[in-house]
Amino acid sequence: MHHNNDTIIALATSSGVGAIAVIRLSGNKSIEIVNSFFQSKFESKDLTNVKSHTIHLGNIVENKRIIDEVLVSVFKNPHSYTGEDIVEISCHGSVYIQQEILQLFLKNEIRHADAGEFTLRAFVNGKMDLSQAEAVADLIASDSKASHQIAMQQMRGGFSTEIASLRKQLLDFASLIELELDFAEEDVEFADRKQFQELIHEIRSVLKSLIDSFAVGNVLKNGIPVAIVGEPNVGKSTLLNALLNEEKAIVSHIAGTTRDVIEDDIIINGVTYRFIDTAGIRDTKDAIESMGIKKTFENIEKAQLVLHLVDGGKIKEKRIKNKDLTLSNENQELKNDYPNKKIVTIINKVDLLSDDEISKLKTKNLPRRQAGSELIFLSAKNKTGMDELVQKLTDLANTGILSNNQTIVSNSRHFEALNNALKSLNEVQKGIDENISSDLFAIDIRQALFHLGLITGEITTDDLLGNIFANFCIGK
Amino acid sequence: MHHNNDTIIALATSSGVGAIAVIRLSGNKSIEIVNSFFQSKFESKDLTNVKSHTIHLGNIVENKRIIDEVLVSVFKNPHSYTGEDIVEISCHGSVYIQQEILQLFLKNEIRHADAGEFTLRAFVNGKMDLSQAEAVADLIASDSKASHQIAMQQMRGGFSTEIASLRKQLLDFASLIELELDFAEEDVEFADRKQFQELIHEIRSVLKSLIDSFAVGNVLKNGIPVAIVGEPNVGKSTLLNALLNEEKAIVSHIAGTTRDVIEDDIIINGVTYRFIDTAGIRDTKDAIESMGIKKTFENIEKAQLVLHLVDGGKIKEKRIKNKDLTLSNENQELKNDYPNKKIVTIINKVDLLSDDEISKLKTKNLPRRQAGSELIFLSAKNKTGMDELVQKLTDLANTGILSNNQTIVSNSRHFEALNNALKSLNEVQKGIDENISSDLFAIDIRQALFHLGLITGEITTDDLLGNIFANFCIGK
Repeated sequence: MHHNNDTIIALATSSGVGAIAVIRLSGNKSIEIVNSFFQSKFESKDLTNVKSHTIHLGNIVENKRIIDEVLVSVFKNPHSYTGEDIVEISCHGSVYIQQEILQLFLKNEIRHADAGEFTLRAFVNGKMDLSQAEAVADLIASDSKASHQIAMQQMRGGFSTEIASLRKQLLDFASLIELELDFAEEDVEFADRKQFQELIHEIRSVLKSLIDSFAVGNVLKNGIPVAIVGEPNVGKSTLLNALLNEEKAIVSHIAGTTRDVIEDDIIINGVTYRFIDTAGIRDTKDAIESMGIKKTFENIEKAQLVLHLVDGGKIKEKRIKNKDLTLSNENQELKNDYPNKKIVTIINKVDLLSDDEISKLKTKNLPRRQAGSELIFLSAKNKTGMDELVQKLTDLANTGILSNNQTIVSNSRHFEALNNALKSLNEVQKGIDENISSDLFAIDIRQALFHLGLITGEITTDDLLGNIFANFCIGK
Repeated sequence: MHHNNDTIIALATSSGVGAIAVIRLSGNKSIEIVNSFFQSKFESKDLTNVKSHTIHLGNIVENKRIIDEVLVSVFKNPHSYTGEDIVEISCHGSVYIQQEILQLFLKNEIRHADAGEFTLRAFVNGKMDLSQAEAVADLIASDSKASHQIAMQQMRGGFSTEIASLRKQLLDFASLIELELDFAEEDVEFADRKQFQELIHEIRSVLKSLIDSFAVGNVLKNGIPVAIVGEPNVGKSTLLNALLNEEKAIVSHIAGTTRDVIEDDIIINGVTYRFIDTAGIRDTKDAIESMGIKKTFENIEKAQLVLHLVDGGKIKEKRIKNKDLTLSNENQELKNDYPNKKIVTIINKVDLLSDDEISKLKTKNLPRRQAGSELIFLSAKNKTGMDELVQKLTDLANTGILSNNQTIVSNSRHFEALNNALKSLNEVQKGIDENISSDLFAIDIRQALFHLGLITGEITTDDLLGNIFANFCIGK
């Protein structure tokens, strides 16, 4: 990693042809070097004399050859993204022109920026803490409402402000406790044990709740897992295709670990759902015999939401035979087997049922006594009733997983640091509980401080920074 | 086409993920609408009160949900690209965020811009003439030094300023001549015939030279055609591959109209060359028998430059047999057949020749009496001597085709309009020469005015504008 403040340059916009492209320079020499190749459009303007946050029209000229007519934006330190002088050149979006301008500066002693180097400088210059810097990369990579929300929250300070404040208090106590060690023979206590216990308790509870949030964070980042189950030929794949078609937002088709499980990511109203199309469940008795069906049950375990598809045609057949409208036993068994899962029952092939039959199914045969039961009527083939399903999914996502405004950890580096910090603080707590001498747990306090510091970036190593910023795109 | 001045929005940077993306709004309501969703970072700033060409940090907020932290650039009419109020929002370059911001404004009565609509507005508002507007699209599409140079010249006014001025003078004469028609019975001459003749002469000569430049313009835009000829197995394809490898800038491999002719575009030092690899020429006697070889000769006709490859090994064999160093008859015949072509003779497989043999070939057997003859020694296989060839190509391009600072027409619409205008003016000239009554050529003057006006955009139709701007990218 470079920790220099030499002047760097990179294309900041997406590569490829666009109406415009933006090339960004940061560093001491950025204004001066751009000025030396800039000819103002209307007067002989000197960019080194202009105010910060102003825009100037002119030509980029090399040896009298005009490379492009551009807009130049000037940001003066410390009021810029990096905290250094920044110049942004907005040029015509031809790849040729982008390259000509980049090359012009590269051959005039400006260095090409490394991946994430602008944001690294923002961190080094105290414009943001490390978790905020990481959030910038997450924000750029965000492809759904949920991942965007998590990244935005983290970029705006998120939990790292709280961590930094708690860490500061812990640091004060650590100093006092280490002072006691210096005066060990005199058996004094500089640190108020009661306050210290309260602080340890508070930090541990914050850490626990952040660690717990990681599971939710991961779900939001990677999509809400939804299992689609039902008998063979009930229309599971048709439903998936109808949903894909509905939203025209296929993110990916991921082949599952077995050929029987296909996963599809679909973004509906800004929320990513990871639909898991499972092998058909025939009858519970046959379940154990089939590997594919075993997988199905594993997938139900993983899912946050289960869509149980029932064949409207079969309900009708049964009615004609038994003179009664019932869902298969399977539906009840599913609910019995997974009492804590949100199960939405979907009657597919609804075109085969009369209005009367639908109405009876709704009111009589399925009283809503069963917690978590839902009933939706649709025809995946004819794409009728899809709106209701889409609305149900959105409602469940918004009232369920996305509603709580709790702070969410989605970064596995933070998750690991939080876990390590908690482990050390558990040792400290044990030490306090067992009333052992503070010199025995002083090291654990230091460890906790170290791990908490890794999150905010108060403690960094070149390796750590290298790993984090290597994942950035160039130009950020 | 919309000729409204309602407010439009589009992504201005290349689509896809980047560090940042720029979304542009233009129109009366652009500042007001952005202001209504903008929360300044440091104070409660009102974008409607800020100065033109200033940049403001803040959040784009919809119903308390922060969509992104952005930089907003404000340009006030008429000092903007379109001549209208423009706001550019520089956001984090996630596709999700780009879409969220676009959607926010689209659902608040801002319309998505059509392709080229920003530039269309610039034209309609008199910020540029039509040929300048067209040059913007060419500039964005430019992928070589030459195409960039032509587009840049045209965007900066180019020949359209001259056309507009000549057209204005012609228009004045046309008015006088039509006035004469009103007073036909009185046989007066308001228009000075001598001045008029001089003007017609001047315009025709300008038009002729612009029309002639179209061939060069096309070459520059599409690449300088270079035919590579020589006996089979002399190493033509190896040479092409070595050149491609040398510059690592393959633009395209175009399969020719016959399987025997393969074209490759290679950009070397900013100039595009269209290399035409031809079927081998065996012996002139066999030439007529083979269709492939007929094609070869056609390609030599089309080429601006011919690279004739000669096998160093065969020269050696001949020397051993005949005790003399000579090039094949073929080389001399090529020069005799195409006295006006620039032919560069390349001795390939130079590793098979001794230094002494090379030196002799250079000084004795090939005196430079033949105009346009060149001799380069290389080994395409071992990639030795390639530098010299690259230098030769660059020199020829720079001193030959690219050197003259003449105005170049590269747009086929302009070419057609210039031709039509010239045709009409030829009729006028004929009328003057034959001393016929001005009412018989007044219509031709009108036609010439019409066609010249199409270039500058003084005369437009919705169809014309539609065709031109439909080729633009959206956001420009």
